[in-house]
Amino acid sequence: MNLILLFENDVISRDVVRLQGRRREHMLQVLKATAGDQVLVGMLNGLVGKGTITDITADTLTMELRLDRQPPAPLPVTLVLALPRPKMLKRVLFAASSMGVKRLYLINSFRVEKSFWKSPLLSVERMHEYLLLGLEQAKDTVVPEVLLRPQFRPFVEDELPAIMEDSPAFVAHPGAEEPCPRDMKRYVILAIGPEGGFISYEIGKLASIGFIPVSLGERPLRVETSVPALLARIF
Amino acid sequence: MNLILLFENDVISRDVVRLQGRRREHMLQVLKATAGDQVLVGMLNGLVGKGTITDITADTLTMELRLDRQPPAPLPVTLVLALPRPKMLKRVLFAASSMGVKRLYLINSFRVEKSFWKSPLLSVERMHEYLLLGLEQAKDTVVPEVLLRPQFRPFVEDELPAIMEDSPAFVAHPGAEEPCPRDMKRYVILAIGPEGGFISYEIGKLASIGFIPVSLGERPLRVETSVPALLARIF
Repeated sequence: MNLILLFENDVISRDVVRLQGRRREHMLQVLKATAGDQVLVGMLNGLVGKGTITDITADTLTMELRLDRQPPAPLPVTLVLALPRPKMLKRVLFAASSMGVKRLYLINSFRVEKSFWKSPLLSVERMHEYLLLGLEQAKDTVVPEVLLRPQFRPFVEDELPAIMEDSPAFVAHPGAEEPCPRDMKRYVILAIGPEGGFISYEIGKLASIGFIPVSLGERPLRVETSVPALLARIF
Repeated sequence: MNLILLFENDVISRDVVRLQGRRREHMLQVLKATAGDQVLVGMLNGLVGKGTITDITADTLTMELRLDRQPPAPLPVTLVLALPRPKMLKRVLFAASSMGVKRLYLINSFRVEKSFWKSPLLSVERMHEYLLLGLEQAKDTVVPEVLLRPQFRPFVEDELPAIMEDSPAFVAHPGAEEPCPRDMKRYVILAIGPEGGFISYEIGKLASIGFIPVSLGERPLRVETSVPALLARIF
């Protein structure tokens, strides 16, 4: 936790918040904070700044805020990801959130196991847990939007072209001839397949609306490795 | 498992191996392989090729081998990593191995908790588990060498300069002015700090022998995110 994320209902009066639970514990036990100390804080979807601890009781911690900076710039990307298995999804949500992804579609693919769509992790509340941990890691406040699209073809045919607008679109495909581009200075749409990759039909569908298959090399990577690798290569 | 890794003691006669346990289970249950099928195999630290299944019994699986290709090229990098907490170390060993890292120093730093050095995970056998899983993921056979250096200063002063030779050396440091370089066509030494980063003294020591502090941006990332991100950016 490199930033303490604050919520509307922490606010008890103008520029004053009162915290309980996990964040209070973290400040006392990990940061060893005491009254008078300042910590980096940020208001959910809002500004970043300093919180000065004014009071600590047996179960609360009160801070005065001075929020005066914008959070770090988002990555100019929409990520389109074949739904990973739940254990991987947690890490991918964390990693994508910490790297500044703000829009993420989780889509179906032939190689996505049907059971993954029934995971309780796919509730907004559960996904927010990992997204918010990623924001706290990266000193960010802006919650990524995660959209579930359990049908591949209607999504690609009817919705994805409008999402793409005029942005370049790439689909990561181990063995593609085109190397993954570097240092793009513009908004990009990036699709990443499931373990084992998108099947030919799916690559064909994506190519038909303008996606370019690109590769990071001949090594197939796990999705939790390829998400940070592709984002760091492209931006 | 995108490649079945074979060991010397699997070999029962020239070009014939007999497997038991995890790899046999994987081939039968995940790959649904039957006699006559071919799978991608590789000999530990050796060639890659095809294995043709010739016999399956209640607890063994026999294959004839045709090994005729080199494994994928290694990444031209020596990674110098502040020892992460054990849970992270597993993922980092896997990720680094799958991306083609072949030499990794795990070093001490002020912010490395002393208890991490007592983890049973630091035995060669336990680390090999995760390194080999990374090779199987990436269709590679060459086991990375992992070296433990529990004393920061003697390592940096006495050993690191010889490791560096004339290679450019970078230390990842959130907030460094120099951006992380891209598309290096040569051998690189890359140091990555612990959670919270190397302290100033350590950055100074590394800088004094020629390390350049570089940054991926203003967002601090977890080591399991920053390893793939830095490697993909630099190469």
